[in-house]
Amino acid sequence: MLRLAPPDFLRFRQSTFLESTFGGGEANVAVSCANYGLDVSFVTRLPKNDISDWCIRTLRQSNVDTSDIVFGGDRIGIYFLETGAVSRGSKVVYDRANSSVSQIETGMIDWDKVFEGATWFHWTGITPAISQGAADACLEAIKVANDKGVTVSCDLNYRKNLWKYGKTADEVMPGLVEGTDIILGNEEDAEKVFGIHPEGVDVTSGHVEGAAYESVGKQLMTRFPRAKKVIITLRGSINASHNSWSGVLWDGKQLYQAPTYQITHIVDRVGGGDSFMGGLIYGLNTYTDNDQKALDFAVAASCLKHTIKGDFNQVTIDEVEKLMGGDASGRVSR
Amino acid sequence: MLRLAPPDFLRFRQSTFLESTFGGGEANVAVSCANYGLDVSFVTRLPKNDISDWCIRTLRQSNVDTSDIVFGGDRIGIYFLETGAVSRGSKVVYDRANSSVSQIETGMIDWDKVFEGATWFHWTGITPAISQGAADACLEAIKVANDKGVTVSCDLNYRKNLWKYGKTADEVMPGLVEGTDIILGNEEDAEKVFGIHPEGVDVTSGHVEGAAYESVGKQLMTRFPRAKKVIITLRGSINASHNSWSGVLWDGKQLYQAPTYQITHIVDRVGGGDSFMGGLIYGLNTYTDNDQKALDFAVAASCLKHTIKGDFNQVTIDEVEKLMGGDASGRVSR
Amino acid sequence: MLRLAPPDFLRFRQSTFLESTFGGGEANVAVSCANYGLDVSFVTRLPKNDISDWCIRTLRQSNVDTSDIVFGGDRIGIYFLETGAVSRGSKVVYDRANSSVSQIETGMIDWDKVFEGATWFHWTGITPAISQGAADACLEAIKVANDKGVTVSCDLNYRKNLWKYGKTADEVMPGLVEGTDIILGNEEDAEKVFGIHPEGVDVTSGHVEGAAYESVGKQLMTRFPRAKKVIITLRGSINASHNSWSGVLWDGKQLYQAPTYQITHIVDRVGGGDSFMGGLIYGLNTYTDNDQKALDFAVAASCLKHTIKGDFNQVTIDEVEKLMGGDASGRVSR
Amino acid sequence: MLRLAPPDFLRFRQSTFLESTFGGGEANVAVSCANYGLDVSFVTRLPKNDISDWCIRTLRQSNVDTSDIVFGGDRIGIYFLETGAVSRGSKVVYDRANSSVSQIETGMIDWDKVFEGATWFHWTGITPAISQGAADACLEAIKVANDKGVTVSCDLNYRKNLWKYGKTADEVMPGLVEGTDIILGNEEDAEKVFGIHPEGVDVTSGHVEGAAYESVGKQLMTRFPRAKKVIITLRGSINASHNSWSGVLWDGKQLYQAPTYQITHIVDRVGGGDSFMGGLIYGLNTYTDNDQKALDFAVAASCLKHTIKGDFNQVTIDEVEKLMGGDASGRVSR
Amino acid sequence: MLRLAPPDFLRFRQSTFLESTFGGGEANVAVSCANYGLDVSFVTRLPKNDISDWCIRTLRQSNVDTSDIVFGGDRIGIYFLETGAVSRGSKVVYDRANSSVSQIETGMIDWDKVFEGATWFHWTGITPAISQGAADACLEAIKVANDKGVTVSCDLNYRKNLWKYGKTADEVMPGLVEGTDIILGNEEDAEKVFGIHPEGVDVTSGHVEGAAYESVGKQLMTRFPRAKKVIITLRGSINASHNSWSGVLWDGKQLYQAPTYQITHIVDRVGGGDSFMGGLIYGLNTYTDNDQKALDFAVAASCLKHTIKGDFNQVTIDEVEKLMGGDASGRVSR
Amino acid sequence: MLRLAPPDFLRFRQSTFLESTFGGGEANVAVSCANYGLDVSFVTRLPKNDISDWCIRTLRQSNVDTSDIVFGGDRIGIYFLETGAVSRGSKVVYDRANSSVSQIETGMIDWDKVFEGATWFHWTGITPAISQGAADACLEAIKVANDKGVTVSCDLNYRKNLWKYGKTADEVMPGLVEGTDIILGNEEDAEKVFGIHPEGVDVTSGHVEGAAYESVGKQLMTRFPRAKKVIITLRGSINASHNSWSGVLWDGKQLYQAPTYQITHIVDRVGGGDSFMGGLIYGLNTYTDNDQKALDFAVAASCLKHTIKGDFNQVTIDEVEKLMGGDASGRVSR
Repeated sequence: MLRLAPPDFLRFRQSTFLESTFGGGEANVAVSCANYGLDVSFVTRLPKNDISDWCIRTLRQSNVDTSDIVFGGDRIGIYFLETGAVSRGSKVVYDRANSSVSQIETGMIDWDKVFEGATWFHWTGITPAISQGAADACLEAIKVANDKGVTVSCDLNYRKNLWKYGKTADEVMPGLVEGTDIILGNEEDAEKVFGIHPEGVDVTSGHVEGAAYESVGKQLMTRFPRAKKVIITLRGSINASHNSWSGVLWDGKQLYQAPTYQITHIVDRVGGGDSFMGGLIYGLNTYTDNDQKALDFAVAASCLKHTIKGDFNQVTIDEVEKLMGGDASGRVSR
Repeated sequence: MLRLAPPDFLRFRQSTFLESTFGGGEANVAVSCANYGLDVSFVTRLPKNDISDWCIRTLRQSNVDTSDIVFGGDRIGIYFLETGAVSRGSKVVYDRANSSVSQIETGMIDWDKVFEGATWFHWTGITPAISQGAADACLEAIKVANDKGVTVSCDLNYRKNLWKYGKTADEVMPGLVEGTDIILGNEEDAEKVFGIHPEGVDVTSGHVEGAAYESVGKQLMTRFPRAKKVIITLRGSINASHNSWSGVLWDGKQLYQAPTYQITHIVDRVGGGDSFMGGLIYGLNTYTDNDQKALDFAVAASCLKHTIKGDFNQVTIDEVEKLMGGDASGRVSR
Repeated sequence: MLRLAPPDFLRFRQSTFLESTFGGGEANVAVSCANYGLDVSFVTRLPKNDISDWCIRTLRQSNVDTSDIVFGGDRIGIYFLETGAVSRGSKVVYDRANSSVSQIETGMIDWDKVFEGATWFHWTGITPAISQGAADACLEAIKVANDKGVTVSCDLNYRKNLWKYGKTADEVMPGLVEGTDIILGNEEDAEKVFGIHPEGVDVTSGHVEGAAYESVGKQLMTRFPRAKKVIITLRGSINASHNSWSGVLWDGKQLYQAPTYQITHIVDRVGGGDSFMGGLIYGLNTYTDNDQKALDFAVAASCLKHTIKGDFNQVTIDEVEKLMGGDASGRVSR
Repeated sequence: MLRLAPPDFLRFRQSTFLESTFGGGEANVAVSCANYGLDVSFVTRLPKNDISDWCIRTLRQSNVDTSDIVFGGDRIGIYFLETGAVSRGSKVVYDRANSSVSQIETGMIDWDKVFEGATWFHWTGITPAISQGAADACLEAIKVANDKGVTVSCDLNYRKNLWKYGKTADEVMPGLVEGTDIILGNEEDAEKVFGIHPEGVDVTSGHVEGAAYESVGKQLMTRFPRAKKVIITLRGSINASHNSWSGVLWDGKQLYQAPTYQITHIVDRVGGGDSFMGGLIYGLNTYTDNDQKALDFAVAASCLKHTIKGDFNQVTIDEVEKLMGGDASGRVSR
Repeated sequence: MLRLAPPDFLRFRQSTFLESTFGGGEANVAVSCANYGLDVSFVTRLPKNDISDWCIRTLRQSNVDTSDIVFGGDRIGIYFLETGAVSRGSKVVYDRANSSVSQIETGMIDWDKVFEGATWFHWTGITPAISQGAADACLEAIKVANDKGVTVSCDLNYRKNLWKYGKTADEVMPGLVEGTDIILGNEEDAEKVFGIHPEGVDVTSGHVEGAAYESVGKQLMTRFPRAKKVIITLRGSINASHNSWSGVLWDGKQLYQAPTYQITHIVDRVGGGDSFMGGLIYGLNTYTDNDQKALDFAVAASCLKHTIKGDFNQVTIDEVEKLMGGDASGRVSR
Repeated sequence: MLRLAPPDFLRFRQSTFLESTFGGGEANVAVSCANYGLDVSFVTRLPKNDISDWCIRTLRQSNVDTSDIVFGGDRIGIYFLETGAVSRGSKVVYDRANSSVSQIETGMIDWDKVFEGATWFHWTGITPAISQGAADACLEAIKVANDKGVTVSCDLNYRKNLWKYGKTADEVMPGLVEGTDIILGNEEDAEKVFGIHPEGVDVTSGHVEGAAYESVGKQLMTRFPRAKKVIITLRGSINASHNSWSGVLWDGKQLYQAPTYQITHIVDRVGGGDSFMGGLIYGLNTYTDNDQKALDFAVAASCLKHTIKGDFNQVTIDEVEKLMGGDASGRVSR
């Protein structure tokens, strides 16, 4: 998607130009992974025009392979973003209807070829929300991935305003999550999509929160037996400029908890969740057998994302590891 | 329409922001007229969102009444513009499909109310080109205008890439032009829309051009007997930075010809034709009984437009009259 | 007034351009009110030049009626603003002497016509501070408003550096406040203008502050019997980037107190008080018989103003009501 | 003066910021001279505020001595500039009334001290135009300069809109020009200020122009016997983007003529005349006994000025001499 | 190289920021070729730092393969560029000494691997000019290319200020050109590097220029028998804003001549020659057996480059072919 | 040094331009002192090119005398700066090798002339770190200063990445510090350069910190008997956007401690230490016999620096004294 945002906390009406970058859930995850040196290919459908060409060049600049993108349709999705501050939250105006990817159909992408040599496939809950065709193509991809032994991860990413084509999330998502190995969501997603609430939480104990997340993880795994890990991002919205940020990971046996960061001077919080997922994919692939480190990498990476403008996270492994190692001092590096 | 353009002759791929202004044929004419002090109301259909609100504020800033605008649909049309130079022409990428105005239907606008107290209605060939509904609504407006004795003008504005809803210009336009009093077009429009070519031109006479335009004017008036004046804009494209510019007016009896301007350092040529129409409406309403002055005003106004950034012309009556009076020296006014 | 400010916390000397917007106490209140859908006309005197024209267009863009503005004189007032951060406060350099409005005289504005159909008139203590003529015209307006039953509000807005024409605030202001129904001021205004200090406050009680404001309200009402409400804005200057913000309203019987907001990352605090007044006028007109809500609206609206660049507040009723309702989380709205 | 100009050929109404530089006739000449290595002090009166401080720093950056500036009054003059193109000329809105320098009085500047060690004093016709005090101070300076044997030059610089304090140019200027050694003007100045027209020109001779300038030079020298050289700048305004540019010098015996340059893509023509004067002062001081070279330097220097943004000329001796030497090819220098 | 240039024709001293792009002879050719869809790898030596990383990302954005780049040394070369206008030429300040590539040595690049599957190798006269090591590495590459049957092209690109390491161009270049198949130069290169002047030109014939270029081509081919084609770019420097542009190609038998373009409003002329070479490589590989078309493509492509900001040409095959086809009208493409 | 920094917290790779200012330890101190009205001359060695010229103009703009600068060598040092936020620290990439000043040699500067009339000489630990020649020239200067009774101050400024020419800080620095009267450092410098640790600190007392700094001061004075005062800057890095800031001064008898400031919204922290030194030099010269006030001025001045963009501090004595006086409220000054 093309992201168009007034600079300097301006409202649209005050602006004479819009900062133009590209983003969107899956693209953001792709860039994060490429950033850490993983081989990544971004699969989508774009129109044949100069705006798509611009988008593709931006992805290549970030070391993302774009050769699996297919062409057709009329337009690339757009979102307009006003960046907020303090008590004024950021505001998104979507203009993504009738985008080329929303008009995708099964068979348009040769998933066998796409997954040749691949080990991981990531999808988000935004794709099946935009159209029946996109939901179908997503399911098609998951099935091929499952057949080929490619690990499948998803970010539930529930957006109530997107489900407009006649189906609801709880009708469509279960079929997709069934084929998924790694499930990421925030505190609301499981509830909004699957109606899963924390259960059996002893509110008199001192560990309510942990127990609550464990309960959600357990229920998700029960419902979706293929799932191996459930990860929950934890955002505390003190105000638009100051959030707290953390995450937990449930692997079926144990709940891992990352430190909580106070992000006191947010530069850009859009894409925060995606940068978590990107860090997690890197972490799970790198710190094999150490879910704590994988989680810590994901949380630290996405903490840093809040200091980076644009949807894409632009930080190095060194920078993430320095923060993971406890140095949040922000000293000048010379 | 929202116009998004990289600055400084950059290509999209080189840009990190897009200059954001608003424009479009009818809006441009409206702003021109308001600029010269005419009471103008701009009628369209826009979605209820922050981008529309921004657009409306921009029109109000230019003294255009926006209270006749109706709301509905999902999006405002967008066009992306790369400004060219010398041998590289400017490039437009349209993203206007499914705009709110393209989904307009008859009955959505209360034309009786709109034309209350009005004396002039202007439409362009772009509106009937975008959808059946827009063509219908345009015809509906013309009929009400005719009933109420409101003068109707149009800019034929043929754009071959727009006619995509199953009908062609020559099927739709005649019905609309029939109700039109003042017809503006460039050299190609009459040919492309109505198949009208210059006839009986004695190429040995030395006055070929004048005769050719007269022939086109006559044929248009024969076919559309309501028409009182036919005006043709004359652009010579030396290169993207240097155009010549003039126009002729045929009133059924006489061919008026304006001086030809050499616009040697174009700042922004988009909206040139619309600024001509705006100047013409002002001229015909102001210099009544002096079509030569009306034409001269239109040509001078639109000549100046090429020095103004954005779709909207932003010049004063004084500035136009100074140029009409022959002072093209561009001296500093202190 | 034309406001000229270096970008990005730069000092004048570091800057190569100045952000140019328009502002000033009364204009800011006008825009706030127009923003909430009230019909507002801004009355002032401006020179006939391109800078005034620019100013007027800006007001129209904000839906403010400019048809009551009169023309004459030589210049529009200017103020230069350096935006500070943390321990460096913002700095204003005024260049408003000899502005057209400072040279206004009684009789220049036809107040009978201005107030036709009007229900509210707002003035600020800045107008009578700039010249005898401006003070006279202000008094003239108040008298006509009183005669016509138009509610009169004022913001005391004491600025010691402005009173330079030979009279002091305590000589001039009482005559004006006598005709005023709603009086707004900050903690210092009552003291500086009328020498009113909190009285009879029992400092050993736990409610000193409330009692103090009540005392000020009472004294003001005693001195100015026409006054129906006294409102005090409460700013706590932790530093230039972090203020606390609240307000109280005394209606002669009861002291209403709004919640206190911590504005931890100020974008632009200039115009904060004006946005309070704008919110208050809207609130008092909308939540009739509910002064608490009117006050809460005013405080929340002006809290949000601190996140908006420029003098003018640019927030919607929805945004204010969301904050009034207790949601200060600044979450992204999609 | 503070110069405030919208960027990129925008009109004021389209702009959200103004490029802020400093300029004005005498300051521009001072910077030109300093640029070529001459020791220059700029004498004026400025208010004690941050805008003056900014101005002074800008002069120091250009190697101009600012220690003779005196302080007092309320404001620095401002001018707003819209830069035109092709048939739209640039437009200046002055806001210089009541500037500190316009309120100067004799005795405020210690000219004896200023001229200590000085060899040249330059004034322009703008100074006596703004106020009686400025005219008086200018005369005071000229007299001291004359007494001390300091060469006096002036640029007649007639601006009809400036003479507003009750006297006309032809009442005031003669007294000042009487003490002047080197007189510069454009084609209109001599006529508008002194009513001097070309005389005895034999229009059949083929050398009309040269004869005309010679006639003007002779008449000026007859009227002002102190004058040693009369120089006339020759601007041909093809359009706002394309001017021709040259000059002639009459030394009482001979008319020197410089080549004529076609400046086909003007970047900024404001300050063109001042850069001519700056080049001339350098030329006359450097190429002593070679008025042709002095004139050629002046014309080439000011030709280059048209490619420099801002009032101040910013070119080197090498660059001017290269152009004087005939190389106008504009090749890249690496 | 990092290219740092003030915007808007500003001089360095006027600027507060520098536009930052990347360029340099060989990189520019690489990007041009990639632009037309050729598979291109850019080989150089860069330091391991964030500026190199930025450079590499920029190349990838332009579809250039960067996997053959080797790392080492301390810095990337920089050049500062002031863009001129009219009579003020652009000015380059080099800061490229001690760049990583200048400290390259033979053996650092595995040319056998680089040329695997390659069909073309391009080098320029800048590389051997910067250091003995760079000259050696260039020769090493040419020899491997010759051995492997890879076509070798060069741009003589003589820059007198670069040869500073103790050898002159005429000592070093012959050894390199001996292994070169396609030689490009401008009018001066052959003379400055090899002392080759036009011979036997019958100045009375009316075809001097053609004969002169043919003579140069013949002499170069005699001296360097491997050469199959000699191409000469023809730039006419009317001024910094207006150049004429063409080229000729001598294939040993025939002299092909391209049309001459008038580039009347240059946006950025740096990289013009490189874009010619890029177009030529594409042309010779595409229009095999049609040297006229290859040459025409090269000239049209580089003509268009003058309208593109930055060192890199950013035009499409369609755009070049349109201009080749004779359409230089610069009309808007919608 | 030329400082090149992307705007708005962007990373290099996201940027299309770099903000270009000048800075560097000694220059920063010079500008601070000039800012407070001290007569300051900055001594360095620069190449003869347009970038140096730009640098010199910037210093003059800040009232620093540049007439002692000598010319030679090839380049001015450059540093690239990414400004961080929250947990992402700022990042500096140095490109200063082979700068003109690093190739300085003894004898190149006529120190006798430089110190004529001088009372203070300041050097920093960066100079001897960059090359043997720079260390030698620094020592040469100190000796002449000592001979002439000029007070010598230094900022130890240890940067481990700079010492690359074969000597270590502990080999070189003692010889220089021996001739120094006033020593400034941060908490690490004394340890890293001289291996000095706090001694005899009774950790059970409540005054550990004060005792620690006193111990360091005592040891430094013992080792360098010429030293009269030791000053330590105290930075607490909460995160990149929030630091605490203070300092202590040991005069051999007493430890003075300044208040600690919370700098909660840092604009630019680079040059913070230098602005402390600049404030200290002003303080020690102004508040003679009042080291507490000198220290307080230094800490307040450098606290304010964190709100100023660029290396140079740009605050006034009034602003510093207001903060020293306890007003950190950041209220608007009108």
